[in-house]
Amino acid sequence: MRPSADELEPFLHTLCEAAARETLPRFRAPVAITNKLAEAGDFDPVTLADQNGERAIRDIIGEHFPDHGIVGEEHGITLPNAECRWIIDPIDGTRAFISGLPLWGTLIGFSHEGNLVAGVMDQPFTRERYWTVGDGSFEQVGDNKARAINTSGVTALGQATLMTTSPHLLLGQEDAGYFKLEQAVKMFRYGCDCYAYAMVAAGHIDLVVESGLNIYDIAALVPLIEQAGGVVTDWQGRPLHYSGGAGGKMQVIAAANTALHEQALAVLQG
Amino acid sequence: MRPSADELEPFLHTLCEAAARETLPRFRAPVAITNKLAEAGDFDPVTLADQNGERAIRDIIGEHFPDHGIVGEEHGITLPNAECRWIIDPIDGTRAFISGLPLWGTLIGFSHEGNLVAGVMDQPFTRERYWTVGDGSFEQVGDNKARAINTSGVTALGQATLMTTSPHLLLGQEDAGYFKLEQAVKMFRYGCDCYAYAMVAAGHIDLVVESGLNIYDIAALVPLIEQAGGVVTDWQGRPLHYSGGAGGKMQVIAAANTALHEQALAVLQG
Repeated sequence: MRPSADELEPFLHTLCEAAARETLPRFRAPVAITNKLAEAGDFDPVTLADQNGERAIRDIIGEHFPDHGIVGEEHGITLPNAECRWIIDPIDGTRAFISGLPLWGTLIGFSHEGNLVAGVMDQPFTRERYWTVGDGSFEQVGDNKARAINTSGVTALGQATLMTTSPHLLLGQEDAGYFKLEQAVKMFRYGCDCYAYAMVAAGHIDLVVESGLNIYDIAALVPLIEQAGGVVTDWQGRPLHYSGGAGGKMQVIAAANTALHEQALAVLQG
Repeated sequence: MRPSADELEPFLHTLCEAAARETLPRFRAPVAITNKLAEAGDFDPVTLADQNGERAIRDIIGEHFPDHGIVGEEHGITLPNAECRWIIDPIDGTRAFISGLPLWGTLIGFSHEGNLVAGVMDQPFTRERYWTVGDGSFEQVGDNKARAINTSGVTALGQATLMTTSPHLLLGQEDAGYFKLEQAVKMFRYGCDCYAYAMVAAGHIDLVVESGLNIYDIAALVPLIEQAGGVVTDWQGRPLHYSGGAGGKMQVIAAANTALHEQALAVLQG
């Protein structure tokens, strides 16, 4: 059975706090880094902070909701056909994490019958948390009270700010549309991983465009941005759902509003 | 007369606190953004946070050390031939600032007879401060006690992490050497402005390579990194001094140690 919003909200906070107990003490501390792609000659780092952070989240979910499914970056898939499913990235931005940069985040998304309805992005070093349980989106920063957030009111592409983690993550012919978009906006920046999406939800950045994302990189952020007034789709304008399992690599565009979304998609599709 | 280290240290903290009172309340708040390059059709944003932050710093310096020179990004040059001079960027990373990203910093450098001997990088949102007054470098993060910092012990280029704010800021033929360096390191990331240099000083990042910097973008960071064990030069390996005035655009390489510095310079110079 689907938990109520009243049940989900404190539960999301509990999950974030449990994950932070595993991640934060290891941030900027000497940590053993394993390279998940060493055999391929590439570098895809993972740390005990990732592994233990996800384990802490999974344990709590398993205890409270044993019939819920879970997919996580580090520990795989359980109950992929469940009605209620959790999609977890304990540290989105592991490269930022191992570089001392506070732009990583713990991402926890919740789907009901494939619809992404709740999610949280937590950054325990800066003490920022952004979440939704399906009725508006909220932030809590430092010692401030939680407050509702809204996406930006910028509706002209020429006035918009654009972020992507790195243009290197775009594949082949995708570059063309993306670089045209850089030319069309007021300002673009690189870096950030999940942090950029939280800034879209909170109204500070207008567009994020990326490709090659996994479902756990984006599931938590879709409802967060939608409930703040924004739009998240693939590059064909199709909504994102969670269809179970690990899914494939995705192209994602997050926009502060439908007007920006339409203009940016038109440029991307050339 | 040159102030003593004992005099400089609390003074740097006082300057940072005064600047933060002007910058932090304007971070993520609706701010008026002026485009300094509007006539050129380009976008170089400046806000009241930049202007008032620098004004606050200059006022305190002028009151305590009326015979010291000052160069600042926003309010120009005073006493360019003084023995003691301050080099100020109230918000390094204004683009990050107006995008809600906590990677901007207040930079305050101090030079004696052209030598960069003291400096601070302050990030009031994350509550991080990195500084030196000429005898070791220090950090204070959140409620933790101040502690000495050291650059990383990574001495092999193939094991190093590299950052640059954006490859778009490299000019023409500079690209070739820079992109060869990206291929030679273990991992590279974009973004960050001054924050990346603070991470070099604190041992979390191994290399930063940039060009087109102004003296106020780097003056505070040179002694900070040197006193933590690192090396900062131009791309020809020449030390950076402050020769008065606004100076020209500079190519900068910051490395965790001399071994990395030599290897990276060799690749850059092709």
